Amino acid sequence: MTTDPHDLLTARTTEELRRRRSVKWREFPPDVLPMRIAEMDTPLAEPVAEALIAAVGRGDTGYAMAGTLPEAFAGFAARQYGWHPDATAARLVPDVMTGIVEILRIISEPGDRVVVNTPGYPPFFYWIERIGRQVVPSPLAAGPDGHRLDLDRLERDFAAGARAYLLCNPHNPTGLVLTREELEQVAALADRHDVRVVTDEILAPLTYPGHRHIPFPSLDSPAAARSVALVSASKAWNIAGLKAALAVPGAQARADVAAIHEEVSEGAGLFGVLASEAAFTHGGPWLGQLVTALDGNRRLLAARLAEDLPGVGHHPPQAGYVAWLDCRALGWGDDPARVFLRHGGIGLSSGPRFGADGRGFVRLNFATAPERVSEAVRRMAAAREQAGAGA
Amino acid sequence: MTTDPHDLLTARTTEELRRRRSVKWREFPPDVLPMRIAEMDTPLAEPVAEALIAAVGRGDTGYAMAGTLPEAFAGFAARQYGWHPDATAARLVPDVMTGIVEILRIISEPGDRVVVNTPGYPPFFYWIERIGRQVVPSPLAAGPDGHRLDLDRLERDFAAGARAYLLCNPHNPTGLVLTREELEQVAALADRHDVRVVTDEILAPLTYPGHRHIPFPSLDSPAAARSVALVSASKAWNIAGLKAALAVPGAQARADVAAIHEEVSEGAGLFGVLASEAAFTHGGPWLGQLVTALDGNRRLLAARLAEDLPGVGHHPPQAGYVAWLDCRALGWGDDPARVFLRHGGIGLSSGPRFGADGRGFVRLNFATAPERVSEAVRRMAAAREQAGAGA
Ligand SMILES: Cc1ncc(COP(=O)(O)O)c(C=O)c1O
Ligand SMILES: Cc1ncc(COP(=O)(O)O)c(C=O)c1O
Repeated sequence: MTTDPHDLLTARTTEELRRRRSVKWREFPPDVLPMRIAEMDTPLAEPVAEALIAAVGRGDTGYAMAGTLPEAFAGFAARQYGWHPDATAARLVPDVMTGIVEILRIISEPGDRVVVNTPGYPPFFYWIERIGRQVVPSPLAAGPDGHRLDLDRLERDFAAGARAYLLCNPHNPTGLVLTREELEQVAALADRHDVRVVTDEILAPLTYPGHRHIPFPSLDSPAAARSVALVSASKAWNIAGLKAALAVPGAQARADVAAIHEEVSEGAGLFGVLASEAAFTHGGPWLGQLVTALDGNRRLLAARLAEDLPGVGHHPPQAGYVAWLDCRALGWGDDPARVFLRHGGIGLSSGPRFGADGRGFVRLNFATAPERVSEAVRRMAAAREQAGAGA
Repeated sequence: MTTDPHDLLTARTTEELRRRRSVKWREFPPDVLPMRIAEMDTPLAEPVAEALIAAVGRGDTGYAMAGTLPEAFAGFAARQYGWHPDATAARLVPDVMTGIVEILRIISEPGDRVVVNTPGYPPFFYWIERIGRQVVPSPLAAGPDGHRLDLDRLERDFAAGARAYLLCNPHNPTGLVLTREELEQVAALADRHDVRVVTDEILAPLTYPGHRHIPFPSLDSPAAARSVALVSASKAWNIAGLKAALAVPGAQARADVAAIHEEVSEGAGLFGVLASEAAFTHGGPWLGQLVTALDGNRRLLAARLAEDLPGVGHHPPQAGYVAWLDCRALGWGDDPARVFLRHGGIGLSSGPRFGADGRGFVRLNFATAPERVSEAVRRMAAAREQAGAGA
């Protein structure tokens, strides 16, 4: 293991990264700087790599079962959040998105309304509609200090007859980490309006110093007891392609999680299970280094944007490694990512895919070498030079 | 690579196998001989292991994309079956079952009837019903020479108003490999009754000498052109836990396959893609050795059953590594697997899970060391001794 935390983000050369077969480095031609899809340019944590090498040696590539992954997560949750979930009640799912879909299928009926904050992770919209539930977009409030939860709006959306609330905390794409007080208010609203809370906590291990992740089911309220959290090692240890996540119920939601069909659990990837178990059990030191390194990039990005692109609005995330950039002042219309790609040779996520209030925004993944973060801002500034206003 | 093909099945000791984390070796207590779930006790093929080790080294564990897997499959299909599918039209899916579900969602409407031969792979029933389509069980004909396709019954089931036919060829659990003539008759019936054919060809690489797998879309008929085949390296190279398969359309079904949503393809496992590509490209010699070794076990099992359990009906499979055993003469009711587990300490698949005509049957996985195949028959015979008739 390295001692300079920045090594995690610089250990792989561009040439090495271009040999990767995952989406991030393959979706654009080589002259484009790829900052779109949420993968990191890190090597694997050593305990994760060792677990995978051992599994290859055993020829251990058959059907997945949870094994001791729930216990490994429970140990991590206790150390990291002071939360003691019941490991025996957790169920294996292939990924967080599938877990959300399964739980929503179990706790709601076709036609039911599911509240989702916007901007929101794009697949939420596709999958919730695909199972015949209705997405109710509940915009975050955008203020001078960045986004925050709009509890009044949330209450109106609950009161209008919602069955469930899909809460993404920490939030993608804004990086917002809700405080205990906010979460307690959410729980009180959910209780008042009989709304089931499903939380996507995939980004929780990536919470920056100064903020604290509170697992929703750990709150002391009926809504928390009836909630289900989806958790995974996939974002924090960069193993999304190995396919494993867990559905973890509050004390009163065990039967719902137990209703996830065995066929769904067997759809998980065995290497995802083994890698996640190693990550949760032995991956703490690596995670600490990673968060320090990402924190450095977070500051670097803010400084470089302030200098080179002062017209672009930006509030550093409180968790995660994406920045949500307000480009409306550039006058490039709904989808500035297209202009940045064409005129700057940089691949970013399109804001409008995150919902109507993503118009004029882009999302940038900064989990890469600091040089590439600076290069990204240079390319964005060059695009602004070339395209001018109203591109 | 070893020269004695049996080494593939004997290379791993029981102790080593018990360290595996996949379902086969973990679902039963250690005193039970596990012959249920369809995984093999082989080590990985060297090219597959190398591809995985290299990916671990690259830290290449992000989101999956198909990359050159379709071309790798097309090369294999040309060499193995003389079939030249259009690689550019294939779509990545996490597994064969998901691919079947996606295609059925695209080519049929809720409430539509989907014909499935019985006995049939149990998840077919769960998943087809889950998407609101109606399963129409179409029993195979059971004759003195084993099961065969019942074309008269199939025609009646088509004529009654089926939208689609999920054809499993080679067939699980009977190991039936349909001849070109039979497949042409299926195609003619499908054309006559306007039924779309979806074929599960996952077992095709495991076809034994003396039989020949014909990919359905390779036939010269409108029904074949409108068909979609689901293919995967997962069974033949034992990598089901890594999560990758392909939907491969006939010439007139490209738009249907193209309609598989990108979100579904990104649900595949990247290691599944990389392992499958290595298997299809460089895994031919290993596959040859494997089929020879499995063929030996297939004969051994037939001989041992004839000697020790003459009352159990058995026709060796023409493909695959499971045996479908008719235990009705034992007088143990619908689910003899329970009796074999309790009185013989052997884990087998329950026949009734394969449909109503699986009552009184068990399925046995013989992809293991020959000693364990003999031990399985010994345990089954001991169960018969202990439990007697009418257990
Ligand atoms: C908030 C959030 N949820 C879910 C996911 C997807 O996770 P998975 O691949 O486990 O479905 C992501 C991926 O970036 C995410 O940011
Ligand atoms: C005929 C058949 N189809 C599908 C499957 C499952 O394949 P997958 O894991 O790719 O869904 C199996 C597994 O044994 C099978 O025998």
